[in-house]
Amino acid sequence: MKLWKTASRRKVLDYPPYLSVEIHDVTLPSGRRIADWTWIITPDYVSIVVCTDDDRFLCFRQEKYGFEGLSLAPVGGYLEPGESALQAARRELKEEAGYEASEWQDLGTYVVDTNRGAGNAYFYLARGARKVCEPTAPDEEQPELLLLSRPEIEQALDSGDFKGLGWAAVFALALRKLPILSEPRPQEGVEKVPKA
Amino acid sequence: MKLWKTASRRKVLDYPPYLSVEIHDVTLPSGRRIADWTWIITPDYVSIVVCTDDDRFLCFRQEKYGFEGLSLAPVGGYLEPGESALQAARRELKEEAGYEASEWQDLGTYVVDTNRGAGNAYFYLARGARKVCEPTAPDEEQPELLLLSRPEIEQALDSGDFKGLGWAAVFALALRKLPILSEPRPQEGVEKVPKA
Repeated sequence: MKLWKTASRRKVLDYPPYLSVEIHDVTLPSGRRIADWTWIITPDYVSIVVCTDDDRFLCFRQEKYGFEGLSLAPVGGYLEPGESALQAARRELKEEAGYEASEWQDLGTYVVDTNRGAGNAYFYLARGARKVCEPTAPDEEQPELLLLSRPEIEQALDSGDFKGLGWAAVFALALRKLPILSEPRPQEGVEKVPKA
Repeated sequence: MKLWKTASRRKVLDYPPYLSVEIHDVTLPSGRRIADWTWIITPDYVSIVVCTDDDRFLCFRQEKYGFEGLSLAPVGGYLEPGESALQAARRELKEEAGYEASEWQDLGTYVVDTNRGAGNAYFYLARGARKVCEPTAPDEEQPELLLLSRPEIEQALDSGDFKGLGWAAVFALALRKLPILSEPRPQEGVEKVPKA
């Protein structure tokens, strides 16, 4: 299998630091050439599933320009220049929520658009989280901070209450790493029978 | 909480059908105005976790321009004009793999960039999949079609073998809907003891 080749690239739109677009002259593995392949440059971001010692998940309920109404959202944001993803994650947790966490687990790095780039998403699961101060730089969108249980997170995922792709993704990936230790949720349609 | 307001929008880049960029003049919930908010228009896409009756998952191993090397990937692709997401999903399954599926479960719709749009991802879990023909329109990237077990999918998610955000997301979301019926994987470091 042959790799894609980039013969040249030129910038055709530039709104730093949030969006630039390049046109790449590429040759596909099949040998076909596409002289105007669009390539999107947006900042890398982190999303963090934050879990407290009493098994609550930090969530925001907030607006964003990209969707209608409210959505649940994890802690997170764009990487700043020169910052590692983990540094950005720790910074966002303190800035947005006023929390620190003792255990950090890497949930992977993913390219947002497999054809056109659009930056990378860095995902973490942070455990042992506790409040250390007031949020130092809350988001412009005035998000509401919630502490949700695992069943509430599962329900939110099932109901589409995480409206952003990266937001649903980081929670679905994090739940795989968290064994269910509490009582299972009662099955729908199964009545509780009192003990004899 | 006040909604974001869009006063005007104008197109500043146009490479149909794959990428257009608009500049929006917006007012944030806080009252702050941003006159040059960038808005990305890319096609909506579907991704489908396809499961056969013998509990195998259809996966491609392929290149894409957006990442280095090979990645595992689900069935999927861009919606065509006038097509519903489910129609696109059924079409892609037949075109890319030559399969049909009897059971379709909606795994949600997610905006790719919660700030700047970049289209929606429509996710499905398709069960009872079976081969009905040869792929009618295989992808340009000449992907290799694999039939993986659930432990192989779990391992791939853990190892970062799904390099695209939407690709890891749809598998993590689909696994939540699939109860584990088979034997659990043996624990690492636990030796099998012959029965007396």
